[in-house]
Amino acid sequence: MSVRVFITGGTFDKEYNELTGTLHFEKTHVREMLERGRCMVGVQVSVLMMMDSLDMQHEQRVAIAHACRTCDETQIVITHGTDTMVDTARVIADAVPGKTIVLTGAMIPYAFGSSDGLFNLGSALSFAQSLPAGVYVAMNGHVFRWDNVRKNRERGVFEGLA
Amino acid sequence: MSVRVFITGGTFDKEYNELTGTLHFEKTHVREMLERGRCMVGVQVSVLMMMDSLDMQHEQRVAIAHACRTCDETQIVITHGTDTMVDTARVIADAVPGKTIVLTGAMIPYAFGSSDGLFNLGSALSFAQSLPAGVYVAMNGHVFRWDNVRKNRERGVFEGLA
Amino acid sequence: MSVRVFITGGTFDKEYNELTGTLHFEKTHVREMLERGRCMVGVQVSVLMMMDSLDMQHEQRVAIAHACRTCDETQIVITHGTDTMVDTARVIADAVPGKTIVLTGAMIPYAFGSSDGLFNLGSALSFAQSLPAGVYVAMNGHVFRWDNVRKNRERGVFEGLA
Amino acid sequence: MSVRVFITGGTFDKEYNELTGTLHFEKTHVREMLERGRCMVGVQVSVLMMMDSLDMQHEQRVAIAHACRTCDETQIVITHGTDTMVDTARVIADAVPGKTIVLTGAMIPYAFGSSDGLFNLGSALSFAQSLPAGVYVAMNGHVFRWDNVRKNRERGVFEGLA
Repeated sequence: MSVRVFITGGTFDKEYNELTGTLHFEKTHVREMLERGRCMVGVQVSVLMMMDSLDMQHEQRVAIAHACRTCDETQIVITHGTDTMVDTARVIADAVPGKTIVLTGAMIPYAFGSSDGLFNLGSALSFAQSLPAGVYVAMNGHVFRWDNVRKNRERGVFEGLA
Repeated sequence: MSVRVFITGGTFDKEYNELTGTLHFEKTHVREMLERGRCMVGVQVSVLMMMDSLDMQHEQRVAIAHACRTCDETQIVITHGTDTMVDTARVIADAVPGKTIVLTGAMIPYAFGSSDGLFNLGSALSFAQSLPAGVYVAMNGHVFRWDNVRKNRERGVFEGLA
Repeated sequence: MSVRVFITGGTFDKEYNELTGTLHFEKTHVREMLERGRCMVGVQVSVLMMMDSLDMQHEQRVAIAHACRTCDETQIVITHGTDTMVDTARVIADAVPGKTIVLTGAMIPYAFGSSDGLFNLGSALSFAQSLPAGVYVAMNGHVFRWDNVRKNRERGVFEGLA
Repeated sequence: MSVRVFITGGTFDKEYNELTGTLHFEKTHVREMLERGRCMVGVQVSVLMMMDSLDMQHEQRVAIAHACRTCDETQIVITHGTDTMVDTARVIADAVPGKTIVLTGAMIPYAFGSSDGLFNLGSALSFAQSLPAGVYVAMNGHVFRWDNVRKNRERGVFEGLA
């Protein structure tokens, strides 16, 4: 009864490129985060892609849904950029029945001391183990069903729809 | 539908006393941790006590149970030292029906860079919102019912019975 | 006999803008860094500007030199972006005799857990107190005279000439 | 012209033993700290001992002085517990002429996020390269000659005599 964690990139994994002075992707920090959390739950981590979710196309979302459908686990966490997390959740919801799938991300990259990432990862892993089958977004302590959430870009927070 | 967080001390909140070179308690770090996690769930934080759980007597456990029973919230997180967390969970289970109560803690103080505290706090808050009424221990991604868990002191981990 | 610290921005002070997902300047972290270093030396911190050193024009360098010449202190640290640190050092060397002036910066922003900033700040403050009058660049434990240093941009390090 | 760094333990290197809930010594953090500081100065690190300076006896101080006298380098940094740092400095001053030797330490262990250790290490390495031969204590931005310093234990700071 292990949990599958699929990595897709997003703010979670952005780090500083000291030669260019910009943020980029290198490798995922999720394994290091699970170690820091001293995670005792069996977890299989798979890197599907490492990208900014604003650059994600429909075919990437389909690939993520495919990975969710075909893996053995029924409890799945997906790390994902926040900007289009809800779009990907919708594609998964249409394609993957009978599993508990929780998308999560971070407002601040894990490489920053002030990151919310570790809190969110602990939260997403817990919701994946305790909620009934369905597709959810878990951010900053809250969990939303995929069809009742949007990112408020002015405020930088996720909120339920009316 | 906010969550109540009761603070009792434990490794979570230990910090370094530079005049004596030892670990001690000053004030709780839980509010700062909720800010770092950018927690969007309504949370009421109350400090009940700040102590090492090895020093906790039965009367303190009764006081914690009393606070759980009399507060308005039905979703409760308790931060607690790991050594006697299970003992306190038992006292609460006998005294507080109909609420979801999750005890959590840390193996490494939050003041250390390598602390598992933020992960555990995110996890406990999530289980408190998603599990049915009962008393639980949430540590390092796992959740246990109060009557199916013990701390393995040699290995420094929580594990299920039988 | 206090030390003057002039802030000009640079990698040191870059932080994450969570609404845009990019790095920007808000306020300087230098006071917080001096507190973390529990600095016992009398230090006067003045923010002259907050900018990327690639955007710095000659007039800004002249303004920095002017501030160095007219302040009371004879021991000065300047935090500065690394890309044009040597250019500013040259302008100061031409304009400010008789003071010990040490430019420093960081390869990784202080807001990142892995920043070299605190090490460099401790180093620069120490060289400012111990070297004879002159203009220097102090980075990553090394100190260079202003006319014997360049940034190797491929390797991302400072090195002496010839 | 590399710098020798001798490790003797002290607050610098204390870490949390999660099985006992106390602070202890395991291995030195100094190499990791030099990496974080991206130290470009050639440095040879040698662990002489790992102990609380309150437990240090005269024979240990003699051994430290011996290591300073017999190593090839003339610029030396010693990490040391703060409580008896001045005592060790005195033993070295009597025994090792002609070298620049800087003792340093930390008020907060490096393993804590709030440690002053990285600042002090950057500072000590810089003073070791820039001061004339002699034995010094460098703490929190200040440098003192060995015969003009004491630790004020009530305030937890180093201060000059008279």
